[in-house]
Parts: sequence; C-alpha cells; structure tokens
Amino acid sequence: MTDPGEYRTRFERAQQAMADAALDVLLVTAEANTAYFGGYRHFAPWSTFTRPLVLLLPREGAPVAVVHALLEPEFRAASWIADVRGYQALVGGPVETVVEALRALGGDRGRIGAELGHEQRLGVTYNDFQRLTATLPAARFVDAAEVVWRVRMVKSGYELDRLRRACTIVTRAFDRAFAVAGEGVSQLEVARAIKRSMAEDGADRPGFILMTSGPGNYHRLASHPREQVLRRGDLLLIDMGAVYDGYWSDFCRSGVVGGPSARQSRLQEAMYRVTSRGVATVRPGVTVADVARAVDQELERQGLAASGSIGRIGHGIGLMSTEPPHVAVYDKTVLEAGMVITIEPAFVDECGVFQMEMDVAVIGGGAEILSTAPWDLRTL
Amino acid sequence: MTDPGEYRTRFERAQQAMADAALDVLLVTAEANTAYFGGYRHFAPWSTFTRPLVLLLPREGAPVAVVHALLEPEFRAASWIADVRGYQALVGGPVETVVEALRALGGDRGRIGAELGHEQRLGVTYNDFQRLTATLPAARFVDAAEVVWRVRMVKSGYELDRLRRACTIVTRAFDRAFAVAGEGVSQLEVARAIKRSMAEDGADRPGFILMTSGPGNYHRLASHPREQVLRRGDLLLIDMGAVYDGYWSDFCRSGVVGGPSARQSRLQEAMYRVTSRGVATVRPGVTVADVARAVDQELERQGLAASGSIGRIGHGIGLMSTEPPHVAVYDKTVLEAGMVITIEPAFVDECGVFQMEMDVAVIGGGAEILSTAPWDLRTL
Repeated sequence: MTDPGEYRTRFERAQQAMADAALDVLLVTAEANTAYFGGYRHFAPWSTFTRPLVLLLPREGAPVAVVHALLEPEFRAASWIADVRGYQALVGGPVETVVEALRALGGDRGRIGAELGHEQRLGVTYNDFQRLTATLPAARFVDAAEVVWRVRMVKSGYELDRLRRACTIVTRAFDRAFAVAGEGVSQLEVARAIKRSMAEDGADRPGFILMTSGPGNYHRLASHPREQVLRRGDLLLIDMGAVYDGYWSDFCRSGVVGGPSARQSRLQEAMYRVTSRGVATVRPGVTVADVARAVDQELERQGLAASGSIGRIGHGIGLMSTEPPHVAVYDKTVLEAGMVITIEPAFVDECGVFQMEMDVAVIGGGAEILSTAPWDLRTL
Repeated sequence: MTDPGEYRTRFERAQQAMADAALDVLLVTAEANTAYFGGYRHFAPWSTFTRPLVLLLPREGAPVAVVHALLEPEFRAASWIADVRGYQALVGGPVETVVEALRALGGDRGRIGAELGHEQRLGVTYNDFQRLTATLPAARFVDAAEVVWRVRMVKSGYELDRLRRACTIVTRAFDRAFAVAGEGVSQLEVARAIKRSMAEDGADRPGFILMTSGPGNYHRLASHPREQVLRRGDLLLIDMGAVYDGYWSDFCRSGVVGGPSARQSRLQEAMYRVTSRGVATVRPGVTVADVARAVDQELERQGLAASGSIGRIGHGIGLMSTEPPHVAVYDKTVLEAGMVITIEPAFVDECGVFQMEMDVAVIGGGAEILSTAPWDLRTL
C-alpha cells in the first residue's frame, strides 16, 4: 500500500474544498479520480465499463468505497480506505449499495458533489446516475468539478516524483527515436523504437505518440505515426507522453533529416525564446493567463503568429494527458507551488512546425523544467 | 483512409437498428463509438476530456461530425464522414454546434438515441448533455446502448483481422514472458519483457497486464505486476491484452517455477476440459447463457466450482477490453457469426489458479480460436 498519509492529505484537502463549496459528500466515479482519492489504479482504465468503482468522501467522517468483488482484493491491498463495500451484480451497476452508503453518511438529505462539469466524466452510466438521484429526492446533486480540480491541480511531492520520471522516460525515448530516425526510415519504425525505449525504462505504457513530417503535413499536429518514410530535408516532430505509475508526461521535440536549414534553425530558436518567455513567467501567484499573454507578447516581438496553437498554449498534466488549467488568456487560475503545466506555443509554416513543449512544475522560486530533452533541432 | 465501405456498412447496420428502435438520430460521443462509426481513433482516448468529438448518425441521410479544430485535419484524413463541422472553444463544449447540426437533421423534434445505458458512457460532460437536451425541448432523448451494442457486437472481417493480430501479439508475448520468468525473477521483470515483446510486434500499446503468483495470492486475479520475486513451486498466472489498431485481445496462461506438480497438472487439464466444453458449444444461434451453462455442467462433472469466476465466465472483446455480451446465465444474447467472446472459467485453490482463457470468434461452423497459445502449464 502506498503511504496512507499521502491519501489522507488528499482527502483532507478535498474536505476543505468541500467545506468552501458547502458540499456534504463528494461522489467520485471517474477512474482518474478514484485512483487519486482511493489509491487504487484500474488495470485497464476506461476500456471496460462493466464494474464501476464509486468512492464517497464525506466532509466529515471516513470515506467509503463501493467495489466489485473481482477488484476487491486488489482494492483492499492498494487502498487506504477501510470501509469497503463489495457488490456482485454486473448489470445495473452498484446503485443500491451506493444509495445505502450515502444514507449512512447522511448524504440523502445533503448537497452531494458529483463529476458533472468542466473536464469531468461520470464513471457510471447516465441512467444509473439518474436512478441514484431519483432514489434520493431530498439530496441535491451539484457539480463538483471545480472542487476536484482544485485539489488535483496541486501535486504533492509523491506526484512530482512520478511526473519527473514520466518526463525522463520521454527524454530517453527522444534520444533513441532520433538515433533511429533518418532517410528511408518510416514513422512506424521510429514509433517502435519509442515503445521499446519506454518499456525498457519502466513506463506503464506509452501514453500517446504523435508524429508529423514532410512538406504538406506540418499542420497535422495530432497525427498517429504512419507508414510514411522520412526523406532528406523533412522535419520530424514527435509529440509524446509516457505513463509512469499512472502519471503522464507530454512534450515534443524535432529533428531534420540531413540537418536543419538556416531558416529552420532560426525559427526553432525564435520559438525557444517564445516558450522560454512563458516558462520564465511561471511562479506562484501569477495567473496562467499571464503566462499565455507573455507568450503572445514574445511571439509578436519575434514577428510570429502562434499558428499551431488552437485556443490555448498549454495545459495541466497529472493522472491524465491533459487536465486543467488551460494556459490561455481566458483562464483565471492562479499558479500555486505544485501545479504542473505544459507550455507549447507552435509556429507552423511550409518548412516545418516549430515547437518544443516544456513541462514545468511550479516551485517556490519559479519553474522547475521537467522536460529536460534538448530543444534544438537534431540532425537525423 | 480506411476503406469507406467498411464504415458505410457499419452506418447502414446502425440505421437498421435505429429503425427497429424507432430512433431518428443516434448521438455518438464515447471514444470507442466515435472510432467505430467515424473511423477516427483518438491518440490518447479517455485521458483528455478537453475536446469532445460528437457524431450524429441520422436514420436517413448522411452523418455529421463535430470536431475540434486541433483534431480536424486528422479526422478529415481518417474518416469517411464528409460533413465535418469544426469548433474552437475549449470550454463549454461544442453544444451549440451539435444543436445546430441536430436541427438541420430534423432531430430537434425526433427521438434521439444516446449512450445512456448498459456499459456505455457519455463522452461529453453531464452538464453539457443536460444543456443539449434543455435546448431541444421537443426532442426526446432515449437510451441507445442496445442499438450501439447490437451493431458493435458483430465484427466485420476487417475487425476480425485486427482481433486475430491482437491475439497473436499476446501469444508471442507469452513465449517471451515464460522464457524470462523463473526462480528469483520478479513479476516486474516479466512485465517488462511483455511490454518489449508487444512493442516489437507492432502493438499500439500493452492493453493490460495482470499477474498473480505464489501461495496466498491466487485469489488476486486482478493484480498489477509487483516487485514480488518468483520462488520454486510458484504458479504464475499472466492475464493480458494487447491493443492492435485499436482492437483488444484478452487471455491468460500460466507456468510453474520448476514445473507443475501432479495435482497442478490435473487441475489445469480439468479446467481445459471445462473451457473447451464452452468453446465447443459456441455456434450461431446458441445463446451465451447456453455457453455459460455448458461450462457450469462440465465444472460439476469435473467436481469443481468456478471459484475464480464472479458473475460471468466470459465477455465480448473488440474496441474495448470488455464489451457485451456477458457470457453468463442471465444474458440472453444469441450468438451470431462475427461475434467475438472470451471464455474464462477459473478454479482457485491453495496450489494455484487454473484458468486458460480462450478468445473465440463465432463462425459459420462453430468457433475459431484466436488465442492460440498452448494452454498447459509451462515449466519456468
């Protein structure tokens, strides 16, 4: 079992946020959230919808877990939660068990926070959730997305260690990928080297691997690796994340087959200045909107437009590949020590895509860069 | 782009099912469903909730896709759907765009099927879905889980090819895993060999890897690989799946450090007879309940109880690690050619867990076994 103190602290922070939001119980069903608060990671998250796992976190008192019998031994071995209630039925969900537990917690007449809003999903069916609310007519179900994100956005030392490791795994994967990439090599072969590298280095799994290369493709920033073969002069952008002990990294680096042209090097350096300007802005007390504005100003100073950035120039990372906050002018989140964000403005033109995403942790003195891979264009 | 004929056929089958269920439009938001009907696979499914992808499949007429600008180039390159409507906002979801498209399809006064029930999840927030239904008061939103599963349960030749390959990757991973496993080796080292093997063989990623070994642990059928070291006499059960081009395999095999005892071999063989009895029952026209009952009868004949099976002895596989049907006495699904199910009764006692899951496709003549790895206990 992981240090119960880690999870007790998470729970207490949730209780504080619940008090501020006047919630009596937090109903937790989404897999990243049950992992975060329960300490139990599903073996194949979101790929099986048969056995919902539900946590009930009361503002006062001890948490309750409702767990299917198949998962119960693992849940008990992994979790700090002592009050575990098993269920067996595979059809219809554990609604009755949840209702009973909510009643025992007094939640049947209270305000229950649920994963209803901003970047949340329910981990039970819509109909089961409706059945739950209909069975407890005196309870009021309200959105708790902001409560969940407020807690999850600020990472503990335990979490930062895992995020650092997820980043190191990607840094090494870039070295191996760029060693393999070259004229006549396909994106798929490079992707294979990345997967091998991540397996070697102890990743749970490759989180995602995106590649774009060659004229006409540079606007395709979200493309799976393809059979396409690298040719002389092609810029290859790889954007990837590894999952380590549940935690995601996410950053991109590039190389050019035969080496970069003067123009490519100049653009890469300009975007490094832009990205670094964002990183230099990061410190506790600053808003993510401030970071986004600093990036915009530096883009203007460099005479560039962030043509590859759509709506935001970065985002949080943690137990998911993207999490709040959005690093964007419209997001009012104030940075706190422990938050981890990416900064990834991109410039796209006909000679390439110029982007070197940085994953940074907010620390007392400013930003700790977790994505330590060199940012310059490698020669492939 | 994948053969548009494949996707047109899926759409036409959905339209038929929609007609039977009196649906005017099918609203598709969950990532496995958007992949299935749209032909576009998200690069990191369910790990980012920022950019919902929504498909509208009308009972008559052409489908519409609502896609965020970042994903739009990839969606257009991958999908057969011609009517693609982009959106930019990263907060609040694409509700307005979906409403507009639904109105154009006449869905604002019709019956709209949504992913509300059995083993489905909405791929948009609960609040966005509420906003959608509130904006279209004359429309009626009903559960379409059975429509979606009826279509997805029956796999095409294209899908069967991918499921076969996902199984072959696991068969090879077992060979490499059992070659590495032995006295003094940890579960984590074995897991690493599996991940390397899957990367070598072109898997998208390891889907899941579960291991249990050693006395006192055999009831833990859903355990992540741990630091635990293999000792002489330990039985090691590995249950795993690979993801290939989006499709999952899922089966388990075992070995014993130093070789199996007579009792272990006898129990393994008894469970092979039990599992095979289930496989032999599989053919079009038979229900999954019949398969489950045949397994139960053979268990009784062997003098065993399926102590490791909780609620069902198998399940469908496809774009997710578990899908309907449940191979269980309570499930009335009638097998059709093209369905793919697992059959995995387990017997657990103090000397091991005895289980050799079979992944089988229903074909005209009966069952095609996709999980071709030897079922007997290897000597490690």
